[in-house]
Formats: sequence, C-alpha cells, structure tokens
Amino acid sequence: MIEDKNPQRTSLEELGEFGLIEHLTQNFELQQASSIKGIGDDAAILDFNGKKTVVSTDMLVEGVHFDLSYMPLKHLGYKSVMVNLSDIYAMNAMATQVTVSIAVSNRFPLEALEEFYAGVALACKLYHVDLVGGDTTSSTKGMLISVTALGIAEENDIVYRNGAKANDLLVVTGDLGGAYLGLQVLEREKEVFKVNPENQPDLEPYSYIVERQLKPEARKDIVELLKKLEVKPTSMIDISDGLSSEILHLCKQSDVGCNLFEDKIPLDPTVISTSEEFQMDSTMIALGGGEDYELLFTIDQSDFPKIKANPNLTVIGHMTGKSEGAHLVTRAETKIPLTAQGWNSFNG
Amino acid sequence: MIEDKNPQRTSLEELGEFGLIEHLTQNFELQQASSIKGIGDDAAILDFNGKKTVVSTDMLVEGVHFDLSYMPLKHLGYKSVMVNLSDIYAMNAMATQVTVSIAVSNRFPLEALEEFYAGVALACKLYHVDLVGGDTTSSTKGMLISVTALGIAEENDIVYRNGAKANDLLVVTGDLGGAYLGLQVLEREKEVFKVNPENQPDLEPYSYIVERQLKPEARKDIVELLKKLEVKPTSMIDISDGLSSEILHLCKQSDVGCNLFEDKIPLDPTVISTSEEFQMDSTMIALGGGEDYELLFTIDQSDFPKIKANPNLTVIGHMTGKSEGAHLVTRAETKIPLTAQGWNSFNG
Repeated sequence: MIEDKNPQRTSLEELGEFGLIEHLTQNFELQQASSIKGIGDDAAILDFNGKKTVVSTDMLVEGVHFDLSYMPLKHLGYKSVMVNLSDIYAMNAMATQVTVSIAVSNRFPLEALEEFYAGVALACKLYHVDLVGGDTTSSTKGMLISVTALGIAEENDIVYRNGAKANDLLVVTGDLGGAYLGLQVLEREKEVFKVNPENQPDLEPYSYIVERQLKPEARKDIVELLKKLEVKPTSMIDISDGLSSEILHLCKQSDVGCNLFEDKIPLDPTVISTSEEFQMDSTMIALGGGEDYELLFTIDQSDFPKIKANPNLTVIGHMTGKSEGAHLVTRAETKIPLTAQGWNSFNG
Repeated sequence: MIEDKNPQRTSLEELGEFGLIEHLTQNFELQQASSIKGIGDDAAILDFNGKKTVVSTDMLVEGVHFDLSYMPLKHLGYKSVMVNLSDIYAMNAMATQVTVSIAVSNRFPLEALEEFYAGVALACKLYHVDLVGGDTTSSTKGMLISVTALGIAEENDIVYRNGAKANDLLVVTGDLGGAYLGLQVLEREKEVFKVNPENQPDLEPYSYIVERQLKPEARKDIVELLKKLEVKPTSMIDISDGLSSEILHLCKQSDVGCNLFEDKIPLDPTVISTSEEFQMDSTMIALGGGEDYELLFTIDQSDFPKIKANPNLTVIGHMTGKSEGAHLVTRAETKIPLTAQGWNSFNG
C-alpha cells in the first residue's frame, strides 16, 4: 500500500518477447546437477539418473488468487514457486526444477516483472531449485502465472494420497489458519486505505499471519526431517485448500474414515487473538482457511515414538474404517461430520 | 461462426474445482510406460530409466493467441498440445507427457471445457502422450491456457540450437506461411460476419491454410524420419514465430551467418494464390508469418544424399561464417539482411 508514485517504467514493447525472457532470467544460475540445459532452447534437458521424476503444476490468477494492491510482486513470485514446491514435497520428493510462465497486460512495466522474478529467484536460491523454462506473453487483462515444478524421489520413498489405513495417526506440520486470517487483515486494511489513503496501517501485531499469507514457505524441511526420523508416511497431501478438504481427500482416496480432534489442531496465538477480533471461530478457520502450505500425513502407530517429541509435528487424529465416516470430535466431545469447506475458486 | 444458439450449459460452479478436473480427465488413459502416476495426487510420477528428460512450456491467451469467434474449442485444445509437442520434437526428442492448465471466466459452461479437453484427448491419443496433471481455475476475463510438455531422448540424440557450423545446409520441413494466411482468411470472414451474420462463408478454397491455422500438426514424424535416415541435425528449432526469426535464433546461438535462398522456400499453391488475393508478398509471409510448427534444422553437407529425395525436407540455404551475417538471397540475386519479422506478442 506504500508505493513509489514515480517508479522507473520501461515498457515491455521496448524489449520484445525474446529480449524479455532473456533479460528476466539472466541472473538465474543452475544449481541442480540434474539440470543439463536450462532456458535458451526449445526445451530444458533434465537427467534424473533413473530416479522417479515428479511433476506438478498450478496457476495463479490476479483477482482470483491474489490482489496486487497488497501483494508485493516479489512476494508473489516467491509464493508462486512455493505453491508448486509444496506439491512436490507432499509426494515426499525433493523439488529440483521449475518452469515459470507469466501473462501480463501492458499496464505492467518491465520493472514490475523484474520484481516478480526477483521473488522467483529468491525462492529458487533458498530451496535449491533451478528455473529451466517458461513463457512470457501479454494478457488482455491482469496478471496470470503458471508454474510447473519437477522433482525426484526414489521409488520407495514416494508417498501418495491413497495409502492411509484405519488406526493410522493423522499428523499435521506447523500451525493452521494463519494465511487465511492474514488475508482478512489485508482486506480490512485495503478498505480503510480506500476511505483514507493517508492512513498508515499498523500491521505489526499481525506480522506473523500477514507473512503466512504473503510469503508462505513450502515444507522442504519436513521431507528432510521425516527421512532423518526414518518415518515414511502412509499417505500425504499439502494443505492448500484447508484442513477439512485435505482430510477428505485422504479419506476418499485411501478408502478410510477419520476422527479429527478439535483440541489438537495447532493454532498460533496470533490466530487465536485475531479470530476473536474478527469474531470468527478459530477451528472453522483452520478447517476451511487454506493457503497454509503445511503438510498433512498419516503414519503407522508404530512410528509414533519417532515423531512425538518433535515441535514441528502434531498428531491431530486417527484414521478409522470407511463406514465410520470422517468426523470432527469437538472440545465438548460431540462428533460433527467433516465437510469440504475448502476454498473453491469458481465461487469467487 | 456456425454455432448452436441453445447448447446445453452446466455452470462450472455446480461442479466445483475438484469435481471439474476429475470430470474433464476421467477418460484419459495413460499410454506411456514412463507415466507411473497421472492426475489425482499432488504431483505426477514419471520414470525415464536414465534417459534425458526434456521439458517445455507455453501459454496461450484469448485475444492474444486465439480468437474463439472462429477457433473451435476442440481445435484449441488440440493446438495447445501441438504447440508444446513441437518444442519437444525440436530437441530431436520424443514427447511423452503433458500437463494442461486452464483459467476461464464464468462465461464458459462445462460443455465448453469438455470440448477443449476433447481436443487435448485427441492430441494425446494421436501423438501417444499422457495427460498427467493440470489445474483448472477461474479467470476474471477470458480463457488462458498453459501447457507443459515432457519428453525423453538419449543424450547423444539431443539437438540444440547452438550446433550449426559454417557450410552446414539449412533445411525446413513441409511448407511455410499457411497458418498466417489461414488467419487472415478467418479474420476477413469474421469482419464479413459482423456486417452480415446471415452470410455463410465459403472457406472451401482455403481449407488447407485454415486447417494449418486451426489444427496444426507437430512434426513427430520428422524426428522418426531423421532417425530412420540416420541424420542427426547439427542444430534445430521449431517454426512458431516465422522463418526469419527462427533462422536468426540459430545464427545467434550457433555463432554463424546464413544465406537463405528465396526461390527455395517451400510454399503450398494455396499460399501463393491467397497471397496474391490479399496483395501480400508470399516470401514476406513465409519469413514473418509464424505458427506453422514446421522444423528448421541444419545438417552437415555429408548428410545431403540421405535427405535429398525426401519430399518432406527442403534445403533452403546454407550457413556461413558469422562475419558474413544472415541474408536473404532474392530471386533477382540481390542480398537483403534478414530481420526478425517474428510475431511479437507485446506489439499486439
């Protein structure tokens, strides 16, 4: 919301399509031994030495998935990569390469795309992935981003969504609901800003949840941790659409039911206090919020001793037979059927 | 231009995001042994047995790359895949998988997306590639498609853009300019239709070039042919942006010059007659037109006997030292410097 009113502006037409991708990607260095050839030919060349290749792709649309009035472009570049790496980690695989394509209307100057790619570059550097391809083109309206991520894994390490069994423990990483509440705070400040552009928002009390929204981190560390702990989940998924929706995916694909315990859902103090401020129920936010990019997985009960002391991992329930269905067990010990409250982009 | 005014319409909101991708991809069967896991988890799993993996990605934007007033959605689905496969073949590799992501505004009913995916399915079937992932989301305006294609090749077979040497022969497949002229015909008919919607256009005389525009084919057959002829090009690129622009890419990346002979450029009779009708120069159209998705490559002169009898392949020039520059040698035997007349999406 605080922006330079006279930034340097170079129109995209001055560079042309070929110059543009060259310009935007000139400082990207290949970090992965599997990246044989990156940008600059018809296609990138990768070499995974016989390991399995893992591929995931996601699209982000301005006005649907992000709002540039409070999402800095560098953060958007970073988040676009994170969203895709998260899917690779959710297979218990290591991300190795990304392709990033972007369509922008001519209201975006070159400097805006440079900011976006600076975020992509930072994500690539911190997560050790290589940018190996992409496309830049014009759109008739707004900005649209498509990222494809590639990764590798040993066949035996790969974790699908369909391996959960009755009595497995349901485990979640980190804490939930922050990204959604961060978005509510940003939306509120945007409305205030519209009424009074001189007003400087104080986001300090909300810094944790605003960062969860604007600059999420994919849980590469969890894949490494699970390997170190010698735990192979029986099923795994990343939480992009809300806990409830992801649990139902695991249940459906694994043909099992689930009991989720309300009092076990990990919440940051900021999430609890901000929920109260917005007069929202923090459990509903964790169940339906989405965009936390934490990992949700199931493990055999015999693996519990290996994970129980870890502050990154919280057991929030257990799987049951399919006929028992999927339920939330509330603090009052009543059972409520879980429904997908996941964010649905077509209801936007 | 001929459309059913009362087609069946199912709104996308009725299905929701998860139901939608499941619905649209339910009839896709995996055909490639390297496709271990397709759609339905966080990521697809591929296994290339130690061969090199080739990756390419492209975006197509309504109003920039296609016009739905004359581009049937099934053709668009087909073409979206072709555009990407073409990049894989241009590496002398075989395409094996694609991911297809699509953003659409709520003006599109489910049946429109089904048509689009029918085209994707046909392309996958005919070219033996597997759809292994994708994303469907809403857009605030229009339709936007992003495709990533994967392929495999033996390391020794891969052909880059940078291997051309002075005295190599410059070879092109098929004929050029048709896709661009097909677009001109379609644009003209659209204008006629605007003035008089009762007018039924007679596209019969233009069927070849209209098909080149609406339903291009990627030259998988050429990769197979080159293997059979035991010819490995020294450099290769696909013609998406016009012959001139692609030649300059090869010259720049290979650090060589080039003489292109005007009288050798392969043109279909329809291209010649339609050029005259539009009072355009057919050479300029071949040089700048784009979207033909033919392959342009260079070979060592010693390989000439192997290719000379083949009707699919035309020698159109030869490479020179870099200092000689890149020139068109006209029918009148004057030399004109080649300039990139390639279609530039930011000038749209």
